Amino acid sequence: MNKLVVFAFSVLACTTSFAQQALWGGQNSISPEIHDNNTVTFRLKAPKAIKVEITGDFLSSQVELKEGEDGVWEYTTPEPLASELYSYSFIVNGLKTTDPNNVYMIRDVASVTNIFMIGGGRADLYKVNAVPHGTVARRWYNSPTLKKERRITIYTPPGYETNGESYPVFYLLHGMGGDEEAWIALGRTAQILDNLIAQGKAKPMIVVMTNGNAAQEAAPGESSLGFYKPTMQLPQTMEGSMELSFPDVVKFIDSNYRTIKKKTGRAIAGLSMGGFHSLHISKQYPDMFDYVGLFSAAISPNQSVQSPVYDDIEGKLKIQFAKNPKLYWIAIGKTDFLYNANTEYRKLLDGKGYKYVYYESEEGHIWKNWRIYLSEFAPLLFR
Amino acid sequence: MNKLVVFAFSVLACTTSFAQQALWGGQNSISPEIHDNNTVTFRLKAPKAIKVEITGDFLSSQVELKEGEDGVWEYTTPEPLASELYSYSFIVNGLKTTDPNNVYMIRDVASVTNIFMIGGGRADLYKVNAVPHGTVARRWYNSPTLKKERRITIYTPPGYETNGESYPVFYLLHGMGGDEEAWIALGRTAQILDNLIAQGKAKPMIVVMTNGNAAQEAAPGESSLGFYKPTMQLPQTMEGSMELSFPDVVKFIDSNYRTIKKKTGRAIAGLSMGGFHSLHISKQYPDMFDYVGLFSAAISPNQSVQSPVYDDIEGKLKIQFAKNPKLYWIAIGKTDFLYNANTEYRKLLDGKGYKYVYYESEEGHIWKNWRIYLSEFAPLLFR
Repeated sequence: MNKLVVFAFSVLACTTSFAQQALWGGQNSISPEIHDNNTVTFRLKAPKAIKVEITGDFLSSQVELKEGEDGVWEYTTPEPLASELYSYSFIVNGLKTTDPNNVYMIRDVASVTNIFMIGGGRADLYKVNAVPHGTVARRWYNSPTLKKERRITIYTPPGYETNGESYPVFYLLHGMGGDEEAWIALGRTAQILDNLIAQGKAKPMIVVMTNGNAAQEAAPGESSLGFYKPTMQLPQTMEGSMELSFPDVVKFIDSNYRTIKKKTGRAIAGLSMGGFHSLHISKQYPDMFDYVGLFSAAISPNQSVQSPVYDDIEGKLKIQFAKNPKLYWIAIGKTDFLYNANTEYRKLLDGKGYKYVYYESEEGHIWKNWRIYLSEFAPLLFR
Repeated sequence: MNKLVVFAFSVLACTTSFAQQALWGGQNSISPEIHDNNTVTFRLKAPKAIKVEITGDFLSSQVELKEGEDGVWEYTTPEPLASELYSYSFIVNGLKTTDPNNVYMIRDVASVTNIFMIGGGRADLYKVNAVPHGTVARRWYNSPTLKKERRITIYTPPGYETNGESYPVFYLLHGMGGDEEAWIALGRTAQILDNLIAQGKAKPMIVVMTNGNAAQEAAPGESSLGFYKPTMQLPQTMEGSMELSFPDVVKFIDSNYRTIKKKTGRAIAGLSMGGFHSLHISKQYPDMFDYVGLFSAAISPNQSVQSPVYDDIEGKLKIQFAKNPKLYWIAIGKTDFLYNANTEYRKLLDGKGYKYVYYESEEGHIWKNWRIYLSEFAPLLFR
């Protein structure tokens, strides 16, 4: 065998990077660097830049980095950051850009930003920890109502594949501009469920993340439409199609998974548009879900929209609440632009004596809140 | 219900984007724009930039964009591009950056680049087309040999969940610096298999994409190590651990999926380090795989490495080939830095009269070739 050319590790590494250096050659800074005291340093090598700024959801406004002698610009947060998943971008001479030293990014509609996490608190739920992990599957189902094959993301809890048990199902819906990837990527659903289940705080459950855009087969880039630019403006949005096609999803799940096929074994919740969908689906099908969560929900349909789903809303709510759902959970942030709409909706429920649980958080219409709401809502289910 | 605040679509869209404009506000250019004749225009709004260049695997060297009156820099390829999946980055005043108008990116080790596809030829296999889709699951298995829970990516073909049939299994291994995400993201495995199966060119099969770094539980960001910077330099690489732990994977798959649990129902192939693994696993366990693919494979172990896997290589090959594997497939590009090593290996096989099929492509050690090899190899399996 000594006739064969000896293969050395270093050769592969060096040659590959050399061959495509122009395309692949990266930076060697550490960014972000999370210090022991939870301050964070960001770095960008940009020796020709005149101004480098950073914008992020941990900053009230964008701030400037300072250039070192080596052309590496740097910024360290003056205070430790609270435990959270954070997003940021650099702005170099006015041009927003990703951090070339950080491969961790998430897409929110058409924006891609870098992310990092500060542990030691709530964000420990968002981390992959050394606990049993569920399975996340992307698959396709048929919707006879929408006359489409559609993509769907499904979390099954640890042990699902082997233990033969039947599980309750939590349907978790995204907001406008989102898709079947939103809750997994931005919402950290798999990590939150793995961790809550491992801690004994949530019952093992299946989580089904649908695509709530009735006109879409799948997330951008995952359908035959190819790689197009995502947008928040989609046809067939909040006009009843999603709600009326939802039994197709439940039927698919109940016939493809070992589920508890009754109202006590089903929950539905969603954020913003997904909260709107959850409100209207759960009242349209009052025997389907015993647990309902409205996260920063839009409440009322646009007055110009005509759909049987939105006929006689109060009458349908009366039927739904007469059946005593086990949990009707409303959460919103104090500065959310939908705060007043939710206040009005709660007044309506209060006026009728319909029972619900209300959870009010700081801040507004942001993923930080939706991860918190998921972390608070999931433990309440299927008790 | 008219007491409730009316929810208008435009309000949600406007308010959300306004509230986080600093962080999320994007560009409104179209980039890349693929024209009908398959030339491509790239655009970047950067009114303060002095120089904007583009680097990509469709360019022999980086080229400059030209600035328009509106501060939008632009470059159009002089010639149509052949059908392919392409990668590119912008370089603004010397700083490499992603294209803020293109949300489609892939990570290769520690580099993230934008991608786009030109159809009408080979890349039609890489697209999501209107065909039945398989399921892609990320799950975890236990490796008693490595004493770890490990993450694994599994493609099951369309219809797997409902038809009760047993399927052959193709184990598909990544290269150095890769992980269980590499073949799905960079290799477009799900799309290639969906399309080949729909065309009747490949048998329906399960494809199992392992993590070939014995020291790792999971891809960067998917383990309890958190969000660290990926590297090609990992411990426990190509020193026998991966090969000796591979029966754990096969056992897991055979006990969790409806598989054809014999040699004729199993294939193994990999690129570069994964080709090395495929070579040594298949000869270490000569009754396990009837189909073996070496894609741009590393051949010989580093001389300093001691492992029973690499003892008596020629003796083990003799046993393997005496058992007449149905297919032993070797593919490499003409300019690959491992070309000579593969030539020497083929001479060894030729000298012994061992049968194999050889596929030689243009170019070198690049994902373009590995997608081609997968597209050529999969149709040959399980015939």
